[in-house]
Amino acid sequence: MRPIHLLQAGLAPVTREATSGFRELAGQVVRHALDHPGGPLKPTVLVAGSMLSGVLGHQQQLAALLADEAGLTDVEAITVEAACASGGAAALTAFRALQAGACDIALIVGAERMSHVAVDTATRGLAMASDWDREGAHGATFVSLNAALMREWLTRYGRKAEELAPFPVLAHANALTAPHACFRKEVSVQDHGASRILDPPLRLLDASPICDGAAALLAVAETESTRPLLDHGTPVRVSGMASQVDTLAQADRGDLLALRAAAGSMRRALAMAGRDTRDLDLLEVHDAYSIMAALALEVCGVSAPGQSVDDAAAGRFCLDGELPIATFGGLKARGHPVGATGVYQLAEAMLQLQGRAGDNQVRGARTAATQNIGGVGTTVTSFILERA
Amino acid sequence: MRPIHLLQAGLAPVTREATSGFRELAGQVVRHALDHPGGPLKPTVLVAGSMLSGVLGHQQQLAALLADEAGLTDVEAITVEAACASGGAAALTAFRALQAGACDIALIVGAERMSHVAVDTATRGLAMASDWDREGAHGATFVSLNAALMREWLTRYGRKAEELAPFPVLAHANALTAPHACFRKEVSVQDHGASRILDPPLRLLDASPICDGAAALLAVAETESTRPLLDHGTPVRVSGMASQVDTLAQADRGDLLALRAAAGSMRRALAMAGRDTRDLDLLEVHDAYSIMAALALEVCGVSAPGQSVDDAAAGRFCLDGELPIATFGGLKARGHPVGATGVYQLAEAMLQLQGRAGDNQVRGARTAATQNIGGVGTTVTSFILERA
Repeated sequence: MRPIHLLQAGLAPVTREATSGFRELAGQVVRHALDHPGGPLKPTVLVAGSMLSGVLGHQQQLAALLADEAGLTDVEAITVEAACASGGAAALTAFRALQAGACDIALIVGAERMSHVAVDTATRGLAMASDWDREGAHGATFVSLNAALMREWLTRYGRKAEELAPFPVLAHANALTAPHACFRKEVSVQDHGASRILDPPLRLLDASPICDGAAALLAVAETESTRPLLDHGTPVRVSGMASQVDTLAQADRGDLLALRAAAGSMRRALAMAGRDTRDLDLLEVHDAYSIMAALALEVCGVSAPGQSVDDAAAGRFCLDGELPIATFGGLKARGHPVGATGVYQLAEAMLQLQGRAGDNQVRGARTAATQNIGGVGTTVTSFILERA
Repeated sequence: MRPIHLLQAGLAPVTREATSGFRELAGQVVRHALDHPGGPLKPTVLVAGSMLSGVLGHQQQLAALLADEAGLTDVEAITVEAACASGGAAALTAFRALQAGACDIALIVGAERMSHVAVDTATRGLAMASDWDREGAHGATFVSLNAALMREWLTRYGRKAEELAPFPVLAHANALTAPHACFRKEVSVQDHGASRILDPPLRLLDASPICDGAAALLAVAETESTRPLLDHGTPVRVSGMASQVDTLAQADRGDLLALRAAAGSMRRALAMAGRDTRDLDLLEVHDAYSIMAALALEVCGVSAPGQSVDDAAAGRFCLDGELPIATFGGLKARGHPVGATGVYQLAEAMLQLQGRAGDNQVRGARTAATQNIGGVGTTVTSFILERA
């Protein structure tokens, strides 16, 4: 199999201001990702990730629009959808095209616009990631589905809702110095406890925002022709990748907290890379909700069941801790423009491994993982990245 | 590169009756595609193609729902969108996963439901395949965009609108004996000329219907473990594949009739297979509109510019002609459940090459092509299939 490397990224500032259309939002990040000192980059495959470009933006064939905007004519361009894991699924699809020899250079773009519509409209759009006939159509939202997950976790492990506070607190702390983060604002444990309850026991500060964002990533297969590009800068190798699904409806799961797809995809990605979680220097978790961060850490074997919050409270996941997570603020504070999130995660991990993370640098980072989750653990894509 | 073969298909009857949900519609075709005499088939990758499952059906993550319904737990499942080329793009994505060694057995499912909503709602949904900000939002629809294309073609080549009649006539003739076709009804040149004008000069019988459908296809990579499967029945090899985009907006094209993505993707797919159009025994064209069938035949080099209608009138594309098209009725008469169409095309071509096309059999067929078009020639995926 041809080795795959990440070369460059473009990250739009995540906003809630609904100021840009898709062309403007994504155009800037694509130009950034293509601007390489090693020579003009001409990707021949573009894979876009977006969940709601049609539902909220009336735009399908988003990849074709992005190819247009990037001036990439005659290329292959398709769009991948896996709810909030659309970005990760797009990256996986592009990596496969590189592995299969369909191209030597691929461009991955995640883009989402949600802040131009009313909150209720966005919430209803997001609920299309549930089993619509059995959940969404009956009023289930991602707040209510995550609240159910949270209640189950609190009961099973005898924890208290406020014990989840370290997750939003650390995410906001990391976002303070992240140029592309949406919320560069400190949040305390007290702020968390005082924030509005959305669906008991889930509070506003347990949830990531409705926002807009776009991220682009340039990936290459290692070949004779791409070697000169790899000699510039610090390429980052994609050493593991896996995607897995769980049941769409929460009600169909034997164990609500098992998150089989999150556990399985991370296990398989690590196995492909010949690594285990102890080898990781950082992990970009899908902290769309505090409970999702906690559970993902537990099912992936980073924390013991029910004890991720103890590890978080002890500082294990902080920027200078044993296994930093959400190093640029995560979904909670960098923001969660859903279809773009998986691409932001990969780009952020790449910057860390290249030593280009600025004030957010994890010292000596050589191995990273990212995990992107669609639905309440329904479609999960996990990646392992390594500094060459 | 590992050789890819198509083994089996499941084809739901295309309907306009809005009777089934996604689970029911797609479940039947998946079961059919998996029911193989060579042993229990366990695909580990599922790729779904759908354009409007979110917009019209409120369901995202369709691939996860289909994996659920098929009883495929712990597999990889993602959804691909490229407007009316979503099915072809899904197949391409699955073939890449097979080539890349990510799986040995892949399941491709195209599914679309459009007949459960009002015609205006469906039309507006379909218009999301245009450049929404510059076309769709201003009232452009696929009828108006194809009518513009038709006017340009009539003017440039001095043809008359009624000369396109042979395309719907032959499609309906072939559908008469196609069990899964939507319109099993003969249509004459006179019927075409008498049918309602939708947007001058485009008539109702120049357009494919708004309908529901689902098709599934089982594809395998040739490996030690899959060889026993290939010994049963007649596997069909995917010898060429390519996808290419053109500008999203029709206004951005230098030559409206060039259909660069259709021409380019077919040229590249043929080159990959080491074939040219003279080697083809049948061609499943994307006849969403009569003009699109005519133009595709011209830009792919089957007919001279402006003369596809002469070839059609001479019977060249009929079931017993030199190069049959739309052998089960095509988009016009089998029906065009948009995201499923590309999968129907591949499945139909497979049945032809296996000698299993019944009354619609093209005699001695050994080499086939399919072409699936999203938008007015924006995203195009072309495949070459060969009987082993």
